[in-house]
This record gives sequence, C-alpha cells and structure tokens, in this order.
Amino acid sequence: MPARFKITIEYDGTGLLGWQRQLDGPSVQEYIETAIYKFSSQIVEVHGSGRTDAGVHALGQVAHFDFDTDMDEFKLREALNAHLKIMEAKIAILEVEKVQNDFNARFDTVKRSYIYRILNRRASSPLRENRVWHINYPLDIEKMKEAGRHLLGHHDFSSFRAAACQAKSPEKTLDIIEITKEGDEIVFYFEAKSFLHHQVRNMVGTLKMAGDKSITPKDVKTILEAKDRTKAGITAPACGLYFKQVWY
Amino acid sequence: MPARFKITIEYDGTGLLGWQRQLDGPSVQEYIETAIYKFSSQIVEVHGSGRTDAGVHALGQVAHFDFDTDMDEFKLREALNAHLKIMEAKIAILEVEKVQNDFNARFDTVKRSYIYRILNRRASSPLRENRVWHINYPLDIEKMKEAGRHLLGHHDFSSFRAAACQAKSPEKTLDIIEITKEGDEIVFYFEAKSFLHHQVRNMVGTLKMAGDKSITPKDVKTILEAKDRTKAGITAPACGLYFKQVWY
Repeated sequence: MPARFKITIEYDGTGLLGWQRQLDGPSVQEYIETAIYKFSSQIVEVHGSGRTDAGVHALGQVAHFDFDTDMDEFKLREALNAHLKIMEAKIAILEVEKVQNDFNARFDTVKRSYIYRILNRRASSPLRENRVWHINYPLDIEKMKEAGRHLLGHHDFSSFRAAACQAKSPEKTLDIIEITKEGDEIVFYFEAKSFLHHQVRNMVGTLKMAGDKSITPKDVKTILEAKDRTKAGITAPACGLYFKQVWY
Repeated sequence: MPARFKITIEYDGTGLLGWQRQLDGPSVQEYIETAIYKFSSQIVEVHGSGRTDAGVHALGQVAHFDFDTDMDEFKLREALNAHLKIMEAKIAILEVEKVQNDFNARFDTVKRSYIYRILNRRASSPLRENRVWHINYPLDIEKMKEAGRHLLGHHDFSSFRAAACQAKSPEKTLDIIEITKEGDEIVFYFEAKSFLHHQVRNMVGTLKMAGDKSITPKDVKTILEAKDRTKAGITAPACGLYFKQVWY
C-alpha cells in the first residue's frame, strides 16, 4: 500500500545551498531524498512547505513525500536520521507522521513563522557563529519596534521583495511582528500565511536602519508605500534567519 | 608604566585542547598569548582563573596578564579580537579591564559557576551540535533534582574527582545546584568557590543515571559517601559544559 508521509525537519543552513536541489552543491532536499533512497532504493521527490535560501536555518521545516509501501513512522524516522548522520548532513528529522494522500506540505499551509536573531554587542560570539547577525554598535530597540508596526497587516510588500521572487502577487498579510531583547540579542518573530522571497531578511535589514537611526521609524511607512525595492535596506544575512514553524 | 589587565573570554571549546597551553594542539591560552604578541611583540603569560578541558566551552572565563606599557582598555580589546579573528580562533574577548597589579585571576576567585546542557529528545539537533550532550531516551527530571540535593553543601567529593586532579583536598562546598527543563533541554547550574577536576561532568554523569533510573536518587548519597570514583557514573561529555562566570 502506498503511503504519504509528512516530516518535520531541523537543519543548520551553514554550508548548504538551501532547501531546493541544486546542481552545484548540497541542499536539504537532495540530502533527504538521498537518505530515503539509501535505505529503501526508492527514488522519491520530497516537497517542502517553502524554500529556504543558502545559509538559512530551520527549526521546523515541513515536507511530504510518497512511499511505495507503508512503513512504521518511528522506524522511518530512525532510518532517515541514521542515513543523514552517515552522510554528515547537518539535518535531523524531528517528526514523521503518516498523512492522507491529498496532504500537500506546500499548498495546505495556513501559517508560517520565522525568527531572526541579531547579536548586538561589541565582541562577536564564537559560540553563536553562523547563528546570528552580529551588529557591533548599539541599536535602539524601541525605534525598531515603532518602525515594525508599520509593516503589520495587509500591504503590497514590493519594497521588501527579491527580484527573483516568483510569487504571483506582492500583496501579503503580516499577522505578527514581535521584537524582543533577549540578553545581548534582539530577536524578531514574524507570522504570516506566506512571505515573499527575501521578505523577512529585507524587513530586518530595514528595521535595523531604524535601530541605528539612519532612518526614522516613520520612514519605514514611506519605504513600504514606495513599492520599490531600491528604497529599502539591505537584505539581512542568511545566518540569522530561522524557519520556525508551519501550520496546516 | 607596566599595567595588569583582566580579560573576560568566550570560547567555543570544539577542536581546542582546552584552556592550558599544550605541545600537541591549539589551546585558548596559546591563542591569546599569540594574539598579544602579534600586535605588541610582547611575550606575556596569560593566567586563567581555572583550566577547562578539551571541548569545554566558556561564556565568561577570566584571565589576567601584565603589559610592559599602559594601553587603552577598548583599544586592547579591539586589537586582541582582530588578531584572534585573523587566526580563526573561536575565541572572543568580551571585556578588558585595567586592574591593580596584585589582582590574580586564579587566586582571588570567590565563586565560579558552570552550566551543563543535556538535549533530551529522540532526534539530534544539527543547530546544537557540540553544544549539548544528546540523550535520546527520556530522563526523569524530578528524580535528577531529588538526586542533586544530596550533592549540595560541604562534602568530600572524591567520588566525583578525576584521577589527574591536582587539588590539595577533595573537600569542596557546592553552594547551588539547579536543574531546570528548558524546552527540549535539561539545564544544570552549579555554583561553588571551586570545583575538583571533572567534578561537574562526573556529577552530571551520575545525576543522569538517576534520570534514567539505573540508580535511585538516594544512591547518589551512597556514592558520595563512598569517596570512590569507581562508584559514580561516567564523565559527561565535554561539549555540554560551559564555564559561565567567575566572581572576585
């Protein structure tokens, strides 16, 4: 009996070309498909809930794939993790769940969340290398919070959209944006049904400018309304971004 | 004018042979002494508040050294960090403070703290590789807390002392032991004036046995009273241990 499985995945994006299979280097998709092949000899396509760029991490990426035969969920997870370990992939399967054969990890998504971490202190952190964006001058978190409020809700996010973005519309609804101080870090939390390509990193790159006072919080509203990518800040580095959770 | 400096250091212990200079590989002490030499041409000895073993991390190790000439604290930190970065050392100087020339990072210590992190879930964590001890079967945290209480206070800790330990006496006073659940981790916090070599890792290795029920919490009391290293549990892996703070 064929079966469809939903898997929840953590990965360290460092050194990976991102979620999607690439010709020129390792990807999460390729590693998982290879792991499946190694223990089952089945060539499957693993469908992710969304792509992540090179260097971006995941705490709870979700994907689905079909298997020719039924298999115990626990054993499947063990087999996958064993083969990922052998390949020294920095990828772990946290959960495996058998789902209805019409479940789709990409199209059935109702909500996604991302976290972005800025380390805001003078010295870098060896223990958090490739885990945070290090900014070594002080950022004003209150200004960033004030700026962030302009991004909440339904907008045309063209100013925060990558040129390569394949979404049909630049209109998205940002349901939650939270900016909190956690020790020496400034942590951003974003929730929306979906995001444009680079949207989170471009929003963080712009909010950071409100934090270092190169723009005012209100400028973020002007930038948003301009619907022009060249008006916004830089794309924040991939290493600070975590794909946190997907809801179905 | 000669000057003495106190420095506070964070490091990722992975791949390092520990704090102390070794002939056969990189150490924190050697990296810092080399960094000082690179920008000042001064050969100095850096005195740590305590040694850490290979693979053990530090969030706030402290050391002191003497400099032939006075130097601005901020500039000294910048120079040190720049040279540590060039050498690709996973070491950062968080603070530099000019101190009285009788300050001693080792002998003036009044209290130290350590953290130990156990990841307690089935799958490993790629994002926390070399940051936690991964135990993939459930541990009973209440049993561990109960067991831990027997270690509090003044005792002969011979059962938790490494054979190589150079302390004059096996008697130490453990002032604080806290065991808390933080998400999928079990986090230990220890505070004492000083610790025996491997004491924290040996205590964690034994408390873990109370958690997996291979011993009872009360057995920890028996083990302690036996004053015999062979009665206690294994030495927990170095990668879960963090030298947190030193007080003067």
